[in-house]
Amino acid sequence: MAAKHDLTALDLGRPARLEPDLAAYFEKCRDKLGFVPNVLQAYAFDNAKLKAFVMMADELMLGDSGLSKLEREMIAVAVSAVNHCHYCLTAHGAALRQRANDPELGETIAHNFRAADLAPRHKAMLDFAVRLTEAPDKIDDADRQKLRTAGFSDRDIWDIAAVAAFYNMSNRLAAAVDLRPNQNYHYTLRDKPPARPAAAVAAPRARQRQQPSGGRRKSRSATVV
Amino acid sequence: MAAKHDLTALDLGRPARLEPDLAAYFEKCRDKLGFVPNVLQAYAFDNAKLKAFVMMADELMLGDSGLSKLEREMIAVAVSAVNHCHYCLTAHGAALRQRANDPELGETIAHNFRAADLAPRHKAMLDFAVRLTEAPDKIDDADRQKLRTAGFSDRDIWDIAAVAAFYNMSNRLAAAVDLRPNQNYHYTLRDKPPARPAAAVAAPRARQRQQPSGGRRKSRSATVV
Amino acid sequence: MAAKHDLTALDLGRPARLEPDLAAYFEKCRDKLGFVPNVLQAYAFDNAKLKAFVMMADELMLGDSGLSKLEREMIAVAVSAVNHCHYCLTAHGAALRQRANDPELGETIAHNFRAADLAPRHKAMLDFAVRLTEAPDKIDDADRQKLRTAGFSDRDIWDIAAVAAFYNMSNRLAAAVDLRPNQNYHYTLRDKPPARPAAAVAAPRARQRQQPSGGRRKSRSATVV
Amino acid sequence: MAAKHDLTALDLGRPARLEPDLAAYFEKCRDKLGFVPNVLQAYAFDNAKLKAFVMMADELMLGDSGLSKLEREMIAVAVSAVNHCHYCLTAHGAALRQRANDPELGETIAHNFRAADLAPRHKAMLDFAVRLTEAPDKIDDADRQKLRTAGFSDRDIWDIAAVAAFYNMSNRLAAAVDLRPNQNYHYTLRDKPPARPAAAVAAPRARQRQQPSGGRRKSRSATVV
Amino acid sequence: MAAKHDLTALDLGRPARLEPDLAAYFEKCRDKLGFVPNVLQAYAFDNAKLKAFVMMADELMLGDSGLSKLEREMIAVAVSAVNHCHYCLTAHGAALRQRANDPELGETIAHNFRAADLAPRHKAMLDFAVRLTEAPDKIDDADRQKLRTAGFSDRDIWDIAAVAAFYNMSNRLAAAVDLRPNQNYHYTLRDKPPARPAAAVAAPRARQRQQPSGGRRKSRSATVV
Amino acid sequence: MAAKHDLTALDLGRPARLEPDLAAYFEKCRDKLGFVPNVLQAYAFDNAKLKAFVMMADELMLGDSGLSKLEREMIAVAVSAVNHCHYCLTAHGAALRQRANDPELGETIAHNFRAADLAPRHKAMLDFAVRLTEAPDKIDDADRQKLRTAGFSDRDIWDIAAVAAFYNMSNRLAAAVDLRPNQNYHYTLRDKPPARPAAAVAAPRARQRQQPSGGRRKSRSATVV
Repeated sequence: MAAKHDLTALDLGRPARLEPDLAAYFEKCRDKLGFVPNVLQAYAFDNAKLKAFVMMADELMLGDSGLSKLEREMIAVAVSAVNHCHYCLTAHGAALRQRANDPELGETIAHNFRAADLAPRHKAMLDFAVRLTEAPDKIDDADRQKLRTAGFSDRDIWDIAAVAAFYNMSNRLAAAVDLRPNQNYHYTLRDKPPARPAAAVAAPRARQRQQPSGGRRKSRSATVV
Repeated sequence: MAAKHDLTALDLGRPARLEPDLAAYFEKCRDKLGFVPNVLQAYAFDNAKLKAFVMMADELMLGDSGLSKLEREMIAVAVSAVNHCHYCLTAHGAALRQRANDPELGETIAHNFRAADLAPRHKAMLDFAVRLTEAPDKIDDADRQKLRTAGFSDRDIWDIAAVAAFYNMSNRLAAAVDLRPNQNYHYTLRDKPPARPAAAVAAPRARQRQQPSGGRRKSRSATVV
Repeated sequence: MAAKHDLTALDLGRPARLEPDLAAYFEKCRDKLGFVPNVLQAYAFDNAKLKAFVMMADELMLGDSGLSKLEREMIAVAVSAVNHCHYCLTAHGAALRQRANDPELGETIAHNFRAADLAPRHKAMLDFAVRLTEAPDKIDDADRQKLRTAGFSDRDIWDIAAVAAFYNMSNRLAAAVDLRPNQNYHYTLRDKPPARPAAAVAAPRARQRQQPSGGRRKSRSATVV
Repeated sequence: MAAKHDLTALDLGRPARLEPDLAAYFEKCRDKLGFVPNVLQAYAFDNAKLKAFVMMADELMLGDSGLSKLEREMIAVAVSAVNHCHYCLTAHGAALRQRANDPELGETIAHNFRAADLAPRHKAMLDFAVRLTEAPDKIDDADRQKLRTAGFSDRDIWDIAAVAAFYNMSNRLAAAVDLRPNQNYHYTLRDKPPARPAAAVAAPRARQRQQPSGGRRKSRSATVV
Repeated sequence: MAAKHDLTALDLGRPARLEPDLAAYFEKCRDKLGFVPNVLQAYAFDNAKLKAFVMMADELMLGDSGLSKLEREMIAVAVSAVNHCHYCLTAHGAALRQRANDPELGETIAHNFRAADLAPRHKAMLDFAVRLTEAPDKIDDADRQKLRTAGFSDRDIWDIAAVAAFYNMSNRLAAAVDLRPNQNYHYTLRDKPPARPAAAVAAPRARQRQQPSGGRRKSRSATVV
Repeated sequence: MAAKHDLTALDLGRPARLEPDLAAYFEKCRDKLGFVPNVLQAYAFDNAKLKAFVMMADELMLGDSGLSKLEREMIAVAVSAVNHCHYCLTAHGAALRQRANDPELGETIAHNFRAADLAPRHKAMLDFAVRLTEAPDKIDDADRQKLRTAGFSDRDIWDIAAVAAFYNMSNRLAAAVDLRPNQNYHYTLRDKPPARPAAAVAAPRARQRQQPSGGRRKSRSATVV
């Protein structure tokens, strides 16, 4: 596909000279991912905006939480599907395929999470995230109670809400500026795995709060967007 | 992803004994694609239903038309994106990647056709298809006139409408029975092409009525679904 | 009402020379109904399209099914009401008045099926058909289960879905081309019946699978559209 | 169709003893129409409510206006179609068939006014009425200006708005109480007229303020609902 | 804020010479409120229209009912919030603050009644009113039954429906003519009350049918709009 | 109004011990506003979340921009009105009344910005913000171009989008946790100003980039939420 533009539909001027910590962050992206995610490049016209975005995105998607990183990507993708956000479906679709190590699960949630074979916990989580996306003014105690019944703590509910809300922001900013995704995302984890159990996703046995995931920031955890 | 079921959420009984022409059609699918598309397997509990579906789908998607086969797949995918149809986005997403020989274009239209870099002809075509999907009761002469202005003949308008309408049917049948896509579709044409111009899609010079389509396209044309 | 055009808003050229079986079908329409339904005349610019449409429509509306023909017309009309389709409400409104031998039931479903005095079976059936029309992406197992609870088999569910989906197609094609209904439909079965029980519709005692309807293709059964 | 109830789904107690002017109004209905419209019978549990409703309905639909009575019925029916109001589509559908002396125009507007062959004045009028019904919060000067361009005075705009708004009220009250229409409406003016020009509706030459309406119209004007 | 216009966006000509009872009504407004509500001034171009509106509004909002006047204002404001009606939110927002003697409750319902701390009776009442506003065609027995369960009689249900329906009318008329609210409403009961229990609203103990409210028509009861 | 809870519907545990810079921020709030905004208190269970939120909110609402702070509050309130967010309408409604020094403008935008008397620049700005809120997937070049035509630079467009997107996030988080606004907001700037021209808002002569804002504005700028 020919590109309408490289990054956004806006002429935002020259990138700012990045502050040292942000320059280091970009360098880390290049090391780990091979590229700087376009959403960061778009924000890079202004150090303060870029920093605020990175801080919030990283805290939400990589910070300590009762939700696994996979679960947070599931929310990101399910919300972005409702909003038909090309950038986020591409970038977080790739992240979800990776986190789940399951290309099909990633694509299914990008299409319609109701078609995926989800554990009740994940069904409840995405039902809430999507309802919050579509009809925020109608959320009430019954909705919160369904999450508690599905095993989520009140802090988990905050996190589900915060991640779903964040992608309602990102989807809209991406749409408003017609943000292009990095080409690489399209081709990430597209191979059919030879022996893929994926059972952990389909039927998680327990809360994955403290995943013994060792090096928490593995190669793909370096950045979130 | 674990499977909720193999084919549909319904217990439709044993497949019918296929009539000879339908058996031959299935055989052709296996030869050319390596599998029988699940929508056909779902319909296979009844010869009459299967035959009617195959006839209509093949006529619409492979029959003579002022729309290229690629254009018809674009409509199929854009409509299915609005309806969040997992089966059709998977199956026709794969077909669109193939017809366009462009994985990124296929994914972009599956996300939101407005994010794709489309020629005005294709933008107008998909605008109409999506409006017909979302608000059929509001279509009027002004909508038809926009298609004529974009270079479509009245017969082309019929075809755009017929294909868009057909996927509004298929999307709903697939949703109603929770139709699973064949796994293969997820992995079709996912490689990054080493040197991809794709200009033909982005800026078609002329009506692609009689594409001198080489052997590869022929093989895919054997079945439509 | 003056006519904007005779048939459709499109100039589709001269009707095709009908293939013998289609010509015979048109002849049968004229014999039984006194006219050829306009949707068939609209399709008649192309034999292949006409044949595919007739096959599917007849299979769905007249073929063997656990749903009575009356029930299938109820679905057709309830779906067309949601989509505000003038052609289908006129043509299938007439068919529904005839099948039910109840002009008021026909009109009520054309307005809003919730205002009709329906048996629970029919309420469940139309609830599903309308939900599939309005929010296909939200259908899930709970929706299917409600149909089973109302006494429908899984094959019946397929048929409910297939008929509802088909009219989501037909409604959109009719809207896209501004299809005019035959004038006769407006005046079909409009008389107040002198002694009309209609109890069979309001409270069907049993599944009407094998209606002892003798000549299954009575005069009005000759064609479906 | 069997009746769920005679009048409404509510048990509103015995009808009030009508005040003399209301009793006379009911008597006039019986004389002219042969029955008392059910909406009036529903309101009859309370003299004050009945009187307020009759006053407003009659003023809007029969009072002096730059809109003809036919035009006001067109608005009533177009609004009721959006709201899928069975009572109003039945009662005002009948009134519209009579006012237009055109059964087909009445049915078409009850289905979807966009399918009717309307003069630009009427198209603009119903576009406004339906937009006001669907998205009242989005009406702005541009919408009002379209009516002026179509030849309406500012007083006419008030009347279009007032009639459209009134049926948004009536539709909701009827839905809330499940108001049944009188059976007679279903069978009013259903015959095909032998020689029907209908040109006056399709292409009105002039403002129909003071229609020299013959005796027949007078009889119908006695009551509005 | 500068005013786009004084009253409405329409040029409706000079006010009519008010009939004596209406002139007295306006005088009463000036005495009690200090001004004539703009909706009345807007209607004042025509005595018949003004009279019909006043009769209906006063009957609904001030007449005898199982609903307290406060409850009726709650419905008015909750409906107007859905329809984003500036006039009604301003005028009835002020009335609700006064009736409740609680500025915060008034503002909260004007924003989103689900955020207010409401008794179950009031939650059920506003759920119904808002559903009737948003989806009148979907109201059914289950909705009415919820009101009965919350303690409402069938006559109360009529009144809830009638008030909700009335503001669906008023909201639309106000939007259609861009009706300006009187400035005074903005500043009515805005002070923080020093010791405000408000418990009666938050948790009403009993049906407030016969409020021992003494002078039923207190100063602010003089007019309703 | 009795309070359902003090802060949120969630039990998030004890507030965290604030890091020094956040503790100082809270102290500044108490000094300048007299209280800590509840959204900050809600976030205060976790230093990292609180810090990320404060950074982003302050950068967007108080940072350097081609949009005045008043304009940014206009966006915040217009978006929150679409989403019916009680917290944001209360808190930012108060901020908007202050920034504009115009209680009526603040309330009007909280009801429906289309009812406000806005300069074309502000009408275009809020049209975009609301469209981005309601239909982010439909934004295209034409929408961006309207902003440029209204005098906005591409950097301004980014800021409009970023602020509108941010409140789509905040609105949803507030709804998800049922965040209560501080009582004080309800009573902020509610007095009718004795001589209020407000012309600067209604018809701004020039870009208000560097408002020579006196001491009073400065005090309010200390915190944003």
